Amino acid sequence: LNGPWLARELAGLGIQVCEMRLLGDTPADLVRSLRELLGRHHLVIITGGLGPTLDDCTRDAAAEVLGVELEYHAEAWQAIVERFARRGLEPAESNRRQAFVPAGSKLLPNARGTAPGFLARDGHGHILAALPGPPREMQVLWQAELVHRLAPALGAPPRHQHRFLLGGLPESTFGDMCGAWMERGVDPLLGVSAKEGLLVAFLSSQDPLALESRAGAFRERFARWILAEEHERLEQALVAELSSRAQTLALAESITGGLIAARLTSVPGSSAVLREGFVVYSPEAKQRTLGLTPAQTQPGQIVSQATAVAMAQGARERSGATFALALTGYAGPGGGDATSPEGTVCFALTSRALAYSLKRTFPIGDRERVRQFALHTALELVLRAVTGRLGEVEGLEPA
Amino acid sequence: LNGPWLARELAGLGIQVCEMRLLGDTPADLVRSLRELLGRHHLVIITGGLGPTLDDCTRDAAAEVLGVELEYHAEAWQAIVERFARRGLEPAESNRRQAFVPAGSKLLPNARGTAPGFLARDGHGHILAALPGPPREMQVLWQAELVHRLAPALGAPPRHQHRFLLGGLPESTFGDMCGAWMERGVDPLLGVSAKEGLLVAFLSSQDPLALESRAGAFRERFARWILAEEHERLEQALVAELSSRAQTLALAESITGGLIAARLTSVPGSSAVLREGFVVYSPEAKQRTLGLTPAQTQPGQIVSQATAVAMAQGARERSGATFALALTGYAGPGGGDATSPEGTVCFALTSRALAYSLKRTFPIGDRERVRQFALHTALELVLRAVTGRLGEVEGLEPA
Repeated sequence: LNGPWLARELAGLGIQVCEMRLLGDTPADLVRSLRELLGRHHLVIITGGLGPTLDDCTRDAAAEVLGVELEYHAEAWQAIVERFARRGLEPAESNRRQAFVPAGSKLLPNARGTAPGFLARDGHGHILAALPGPPREMQVLWQAELVHRLAPALGAPPRHQHRFLLGGLPESTFGDMCGAWMERGVDPLLGVSAKEGLLVAFLSSQDPLALESRAGAFRERFARWILAEEHERLEQALVAELSSRAQTLALAESITGGLIAARLTSVPGSSAVLREGFVVYSPEAKQRTLGLTPAQTQPGQIVSQATAVAMAQGARERSGATFALALTGYAGPGGGDATSPEGTVCFALTSRALAYSLKRTFPIGDRERVRQFALHTALELVLRAVTGRLGEVEGLEPA
Repeated sequence: LNGPWLARELAGLGIQVCEMRLLGDTPADLVRSLRELLGRHHLVIITGGLGPTLDDCTRDAAAEVLGVELEYHAEAWQAIVERFARRGLEPAESNRRQAFVPAGSKLLPNARGTAPGFLARDGHGHILAALPGPPREMQVLWQAELVHRLAPALGAPPRHQHRFLLGGLPESTFGDMCGAWMERGVDPLLGVSAKEGLLVAFLSSQDPLALESRAGAFRERFARWILAEEHERLEQALVAELSSRAQTLALAESITGGLIAARLTSVPGSSAVLREGFVVYSPEAKQRTLGLTPAQTQPGQIVSQATAVAMAQGARERSGATFALALTGYAGPGGGDATSPEGTVCFALTSRALAYSLKRTFPIGDRERVRQFALHTALELVLRAVTGRLGEVEGLEPA
């Protein structure tokens, strides 16, 4: 988890990441790898292995590689004691291990956890930074303690980045449409990753003007498929678009079982836009809570565009939201009927003025993956509805 | 994502994982790393970089390291064409790149995606296996094409593993209670990782009897905190326990906003146990759907044990489930009131016979992390209620 995050941060400082390794916590392997990496690179960042238990051996390995002993820091122990005290607890004896760092290194206080980090230089002036493993602790410590120390020591002209989220476009078609933009060595660089119906494209360059110009051309070529560019995640874009219009959303989730609501509520401020979510996994819940008829929840009907529309209408009426999105499908393993085989998901989107439905069949064999496809399609539908771009969705039918 | 999965699989085959690297997709770096790794190890597995776009350069890098050309496989192209045809589409021209593999290597068909893998030996007989990046494709290909080829070539006595999930125990206390069990070099090996209130402990050994004996002692020492051992995730254990008793659950989620429902419904068979989920993020939804009074949703009351109990009762009455779990809290950033500061979460668990509530304060500063703590505590509460072990939860109050 930490690697990709740090790689982006380092790129922003203009520090090129040459190598990333996942190491076991066998002390000998750790020592060998640290030695190898410090020999090759100006900066080595290691995360994790700073916990209180004996299998946390980063401190010892770093001390060995640096050729020094571990040194006890009373103020680090004091910080651990205070941290426990705030929760009415006392640290265990094993926490004391966390107050030791290699002699001569700089202790980096951890505002979020018990494990402090440290920063050291080896005999060749190469830098070793050790950060705690939990991403939240690592990230805060990185910002507070490392950025301002590393940038002047190692920074190069930063690479500027621009990110696009695209929906409804297969990765291979995207590649064909990009042509020479994706070749190696071109500036700006363009990379892409595909996840369940969503493409994430990154442009990067040291030259902000070249980047802006390519971003403009990209925007023009892919206008139809671009869902967001200033937000890292679709749900952030959606919460922002709904908030700025003072509109609200209700969800009726069968196949995704709360996934969409969970994603939306991960965004601060979502309480103003998610009016209510109904996880109606069973036919009974669909009838009881959303007012569906028994006929609408029969096999053969329960995964249908008509049932999805009835679910959305029920959710909107019950909640009073501006928009309602409903979905019902067969995630597998197994399930499905003659007209809706496994992997089929029916979506409906309704508001006071509009009611549309959509049927999609996603690649089967992995339940979570079908649910992720459904999640991305659902977020795309609502985002397009809010921004008046539903016309660009293929296969959408008026209800 | 693929690394930890493959590491477990390889350990099961008795193949020791010495090193794991994340590589950029710069061809030169890829070639250097592959050369270095193949020089050192009997087996190198590379995942990803087999897509249709130009930034997918695993094929080329592998061919260069092996000292051969890329070779076109008509049957691989045929499989790609058929895969697209099943969805009523035609492959893009760039997909043709995926039908090339290094000359002399064995093509590994991909039942789940367009990118086939390949298997080759270098001049020293070391094995290079290239697998597609998406975890589902990689895992299926691994099972179908690699396991039976690698085990006889490289396998050693497999390491047996035993996994425990524990709740309510700080990692440092766990370490102290383990003592010598966690020292390096002991057999069985014991490792632990902590995530938001949940500990995952792994025992492993080549000797199944030693493992079983240590697992027995572990079970005795940590009985009070062990939540599951046969299931990899808490939600799987919970679905299994509810199913076997033909009991059902309703959820009323405020702070977690659908997270618990989404986790439960990721488990096949959960439709029989999750009767209904209510994502009641707003005060209005809590009143309208769960029957709370306006007073119960006032600031100062909305995050309280009494309100959590009322939410659980509302969810149980509305759904008819055996158990209802409700939770309400302040995830931050900001929020909170005099009696319930940011990070406070109130839980309630009710059934026909019992009604309990619990108030916890989790470390703040990261919204998602507070929600994860709440998720784990909620799953633990329901699991303990279903198995009659609520008495072991500290701070639980009868409502």
